[in-house]
Amino acid sequence: MAKNEGLSTEAIARTVAETMYRKDVASSSIGITPKEIRPGHAVMTLRITEAMLNSHGMCHGGYIFMLADSTFAYACNSYNQNTVAAAAQINFLRPVVLNELLTATATEISKTGRTGLYDVVVKNEAEETVACFRGNAHTIKGQMIPGLSERDEQ
Amino acid sequence: MAKNEGLSTEAIARTVAETMYRKDVASSSIGITPKEIRPGHAVMTLRITEAMLNSHGMCHGGYIFMLADSTFAYACNSYNQNTVAAAAQINFLRPVVLNELLTATATEISKTGRTGLYDVVVKNEAEETVACFRGNAHTIKGQMIPGLSERDEQ
Amino acid sequence: MAKNEGLSTEAIARTVAETMYRKDVASSSIGITPKEIRPGHAVMTLRITEAMLNSHGMCHGGYIFMLADSTFAYACNSYNQNTVAAAAQINFLRPVVLNELLTATATEISKTGRTGLYDVVVKNEAEETVACFRGNAHTIKGQMIPGLSERDEQ
Amino acid sequence: MAKNEGLSTEAIARTVAETMYRKDVASSSIGITPKEIRPGHAVMTLRITEAMLNSHGMCHGGYIFMLADSTFAYACNSYNQNTVAAAAQINFLRPVVLNELLTATATEISKTGRTGLYDVVVKNEAEETVACFRGNAHTIKGQMIPGLSERDEQ
Repeated sequence: MAKNEGLSTEAIARTVAETMYRKDVASSSIGITPKEIRPGHAVMTLRITEAMLNSHGMCHGGYIFMLADSTFAYACNSYNQNTVAAAAQINFLRPVVLNELLTATATEISKTGRTGLYDVVVKNEAEETVACFRGNAHTIKGQMIPGLSERDEQ
Repeated sequence: MAKNEGLSTEAIARTVAETMYRKDVASSSIGITPKEIRPGHAVMTLRITEAMLNSHGMCHGGYIFMLADSTFAYACNSYNQNTVAAAAQINFLRPVVLNELLTATATEISKTGRTGLYDVVVKNEAEETVACFRGNAHTIKGQMIPGLSERDEQ
Repeated sequence: MAKNEGLSTEAIARTVAETMYRKDVASSSIGITPKEIRPGHAVMTLRITEAMLNSHGMCHGGYIFMLADSTFAYACNSYNQNTVAAAAQINFLRPVVLNELLTATATEISKTGRTGLYDVVVKNEAEETVACFRGNAHTIKGQMIPGLSERDEQ
Repeated sequence: MAKNEGLSTEAIARTVAETMYRKDVASSSIGITPKEIRPGHAVMTLRITEAMLNSHGMCHGGYIFMLADSTFAYACNSYNQNTVAAAAQINFLRPVVLNELLTATATEISKTGRTGLYDVVVKNEAEETVACFRGNAHTIKGQMIPGLSERDEQ
């Protein structure tokens, strides 16, 4: 996969993330915020609000998943080839309460052809792991920013 | 596990769900709605709004997960023993777009001691399966409605 | 996907399974036996021997997985398009002991393009579920029996 | 959890593994070999033989799973509290062929009360990752070597 002559893979990853985030109402509307984007890698945060609490008074697992899933999406879309989640699994290790700030870090484990595997670790402010997420990515047609990088000729 | 003399397991399941839903801001605030609750079983719906769309203009997988996870929670808490998700996996089979109404149906596969396994199928209005979810439940201390059913003496 | 004029999809599925099984030393050498093969569907059995016991004196989870994985493979290869497992998850629900006969039943949940999702339920002779398996299939190039069915033009 | 006065946790882990391996016919009979055992950690190898090949002429995924599952078992039993696999998931990243020597490394991600989460990475001789495995452990009653370490008072 050749790259745009004028842009490094790091610059492409950051530019794609900025464009994604402007369109990604689901993430921005609840406060998910990108902190660091590199090729195959992303760090994002989420502050837990009252609207995210379940009937046990703890953060609904869906919001922890959403943070992990968004972080995964920014990591696997960082090459400017449209990529979607095919599957994901999550282990909930520790309850999350009101006002906690969660930080999710996505790492690329494998990328072959149209499929990729990513790990996301979600930690609280005490650096305790609250959830482990593993996501399977599938590349589809199209680019987030057409022409920014060369087309993937798969 | 003996039951309250005056209430059937069906009535306990419905009463627990009503109490859960009043406290479950995460589910109610985004429009997740219980349609049917029985012991170990739940059906819930979610209408996809603009705030749920990701950068590809499709429903963010996190909201599909949240619907499935809530439906799982109402199924596994239906015995009035507090139960949380320990792990879950989801397969995304079909994109979901703006304004679609999703229906999730949770079924109990297994329940032994403190652990349970539940399947949730999420369908669109055309009855096409958009996601399959499998969740591992773990019973913790406490009852959603203390005294409604006999305490589980584990 | 058009089919061989002379053979029904059922006949193709059975013929493919016979050819697979002759080459599938891993399954046949430990006693995994096909009982029923239809398009997207398979039933196979395994008798637990002393060589399959772990340090707790119970059947090693690997052999339960192997039975489920083989049954999944025969179900997803039944269309005569070479297909491999990309991922799988298994929940172990009940211990399995020496001499038990396990029966695994694989069902197709979804099949779109090159990817498929299959559920496998493993039961003992008392019809109790001992494990639930979910596998993601990925179609690769080639046919188990070249020319038996038309080539998939993906 | 207090420990035997005379033995370090490292010595307990090694002693437990030796006892496990003597009883673990499933692992030893196919050539799975422990290489390194520490508390919550294990490294084990497996050489792929003809009896492990599937109908595509590649190593059956069940044997890759079995290596990973055994390595996971030795890691999570290293505290001398009997522990079994409740669930596991595996991603197959690369085909494995005849005569390859696989090395699996298990790492403890989390351990709380009776449940633990472990990652296992399986590599070939070229140090390429062929599979990623994540296992959920559940502590049951009993010790592999009664009295070697103090009883877990859960």
